[in-house]
Amino acid sequence: MKYSYVSHLYCPKCQSTYDHTEQNQLCTCGSPLLVAYDMDGLKAFWQRESLLDRENTLWRYHELLPVASADNVVTLGEGMTPLLPISNTGKRLGISNLYVKDEGLIPTGSFKARGATVGVSKAKEVGVKELAMPTNGNAGAAWSLYSSRAGITSHIVMPVDAPKITRNECAISGANLSLVDGLISDAGKIVGKMVKEKGIFDASTLKEPYRIEGKKTMGIEIAEQLGWNVPDVILYPTGGGVGIIGIYKALKELQELGWISPDKFPRLVAVQSDGCAPIVKAWKEGRKDSEFWQNSETIAFGINVPKALGDFLVLEALYESDGCGIEITDAELLHEQELLANEEGLFVCPEGAATVAAAKKLRESGWIKENETVVCLNTGAGIKYPDTVQINVPILQPIE
Amino acid sequence: MKYSYVSHLYCPKCQSTYDHTEQNQLCTCGSPLLVAYDMDGLKAFWQRESLLDRENTLWRYHELLPVASADNVVTLGEGMTPLLPISNTGKRLGISNLYVKDEGLIPTGSFKARGATVGVSKAKEVGVKELAMPTNGNAGAAWSLYSSRAGITSHIVMPVDAPKITRNECAISGANLSLVDGLISDAGKIVGKMVKEKGIFDASTLKEPYRIEGKKTMGIEIAEQLGWNVPDVILYPTGGGVGIIGIYKALKELQELGWISPDKFPRLVAVQSDGCAPIVKAWKEGRKDSEFWQNSETIAFGINVPKALGDFLVLEALYESDGCGIEITDAELLHEQELLANEEGLFVCPEGAATVAAAKKLRESGWIKENETVVCLNTGAGIKYPDTVQINVPILQPIE
Repeated sequence: MKYSYVSHLYCPKCQSTYDHTEQNQLCTCGSPLLVAYDMDGLKAFWQRESLLDRENTLWRYHELLPVASADNVVTLGEGMTPLLPISNTGKRLGISNLYVKDEGLIPTGSFKARGATVGVSKAKEVGVKELAMPTNGNAGAAWSLYSSRAGITSHIVMPVDAPKITRNECAISGANLSLVDGLISDAGKIVGKMVKEKGIFDASTLKEPYRIEGKKTMGIEIAEQLGWNVPDVILYPTGGGVGIIGIYKALKELQELGWISPDKFPRLVAVQSDGCAPIVKAWKEGRKDSEFWQNSETIAFGINVPKALGDFLVLEALYESDGCGIEITDAELLHEQELLANEEGLFVCPEGAATVAAAKKLRESGWIKENETVVCLNTGAGIKYPDTVQINVPILQPIE
Repeated sequence: MKYSYVSHLYCPKCQSTYDHTEQNQLCTCGSPLLVAYDMDGLKAFWQRESLLDRENTLWRYHELLPVASADNVVTLGEGMTPLLPISNTGKRLGISNLYVKDEGLIPTGSFKARGATVGVSKAKEVGVKELAMPTNGNAGAAWSLYSSRAGITSHIVMPVDAPKITRNECAISGANLSLVDGLISDAGKIVGKMVKEKGIFDASTLKEPYRIEGKKTMGIEIAEQLGWNVPDVILYPTGGGVGIIGIYKALKELQELGWISPDKFPRLVAVQSDGCAPIVKAWKEGRKDSEFWQNSETIAFGINVPKALGDFLVLEALYESDGCGIEITDAELLHEQELLANEEGLFVCPEGAATVAAAKKLRESGWIKENETVVCLNTGAGIKYPDTVQINVPILQPIE
């Protein structure tokens, strides 16, 4: 038994291959790279039962993750987040088996920790000493904290409007943090210059190949938590789209291993804000890639991504799974955020609330049926977004 | 096999007993009540091995929790938080086996969720429809969200200076939230009046008997995560002290069940701020209870409790375990908070940082030995306390 059955990297566009023991970024053709595994070896030596006495982190799936040696794993105990039934909300929506996968219960309070634990571990394994990335906040927070644990120096650039608490996380980790008076695309340009001039490893979304592998564990966990069954529908708040790409890849791999049925695949739904919906627009038009969304704006900062590098992979996942793209308004998601707290005691992030608002619309249109099993991904803790809740509280004077 | 082996409630001061199927508050003598179990029944029917395939929440220990029926369990997936080795910090401190039990990875981002899940579940079981409590923030957030999930109406009163994000959590849950221009003791008086006049259930710390049972699961988890061994030392940031009372109770129960050795018990340490250290003062003076601490003040808001109702139980746990009380300064804990993020990628809350600062002092004094196994409890996520991190970040202009 090997710790990992990683075999190589490949380009999903031009089919070039790369050595996973070296430092890799994009393919020479400009596409993101994906990780391949020795699936025959895995099929021969790895069974579902081997998971029974493993630790409750995403590293329980280490054979299907890209880090070759356990010594390089940089972990803060991330993964195996709860898959919570939300039956009160389900009744209101008319969906009998409605769940939230709650990624609020993870280091740094957002699912970006999954990408960071695997990405930073592999960076450590291939000898990266210094990395840089632009971020809308949460990814930078996660990568800077995991980098500190790994002894890697990080350079983070984020928009001034990114959630304030993520600045603290970067700063206290010791990262070199800068703010830019602009969007994440402006942050990206500054990082690009830094990477080019100083030879620093570029940890930008999909410019390093391993965060997908971290995110894919959400898909494996959903299957395991449902007793190695898949739901009918998974709704995912889509910015860069790494999670939906990862979930699609994971479930294909589980089918190949024979751990889930070859006859059922969940319909994957990309949820976006109507203020930034390039993937939804492309899906509606039947296109294979998206166009840059001008003047994007939404309160759900994590999905404010006008043009995703992996858009073609997200769209492939939607088409291949008979899924769809759907946009909702900020008002709809804020309303749903409040109802979820009221009905279920769940304080989700705005992006997570968007998926439940989308489930409501898709049930109303009949695209989701009453008896289907539906999983909404909440990608982070509501406590990271203090400004989305408007409150008006009476102040009392002390009494004797 | 029963779901729970709860038998009755008893008073640790006057030994009166109470029926757990009724609504209970304090003993008629004024003392908090504790929960007793049918230990002979448990010994006969419950083994450690039965935990192997259980869910990763504190409800895995349901036989030793007070909720009689699984139908009454109100859960958001809380418990089994990571026990993380912090070897970089350990090297600096000269402690070879140093751990953080990270309660940041729990619903609402603080260990108050443990008390709330058990307290609210039992409240539901005994028919409570409406509850009230004063809070320094995190407990109110947890109890209001769990109450919403249970369909119980909650009334929360907190000081205006309590962490702002906890207001949002209460408000979005639909709780009746009030602020008081004063301390938690002032909030307590307002709740007391409300309880008396309206007959609402009083969920104040230790005035309901079940949050201890939720908190005690930290002790069970530490033992399970160390392979049913106990560490040499557990450091706990002590405000009301429910956690340390619970951990002491849990480990005694595990010894009685024969799940851990009768020959080793961890030395329990109550960590307080020098701006509010009533328990430490009482311990130094060898007293059995504490005195009200005048003009208390500390940045670690969760341990700003001038007089704890369960002080005598905390002190008993310190004396019986050969533990101690220790105070540290705000400057020491803030420094340690930053070093932990730098060295370990862990962004802990101020109260959690206090325990590591205390471990440092106790190692320097020789009270902790180099080869001992030491567990520091981080009671919440650093992201709930944005004001404890002072940052100064450059703002860049976009480039072409």
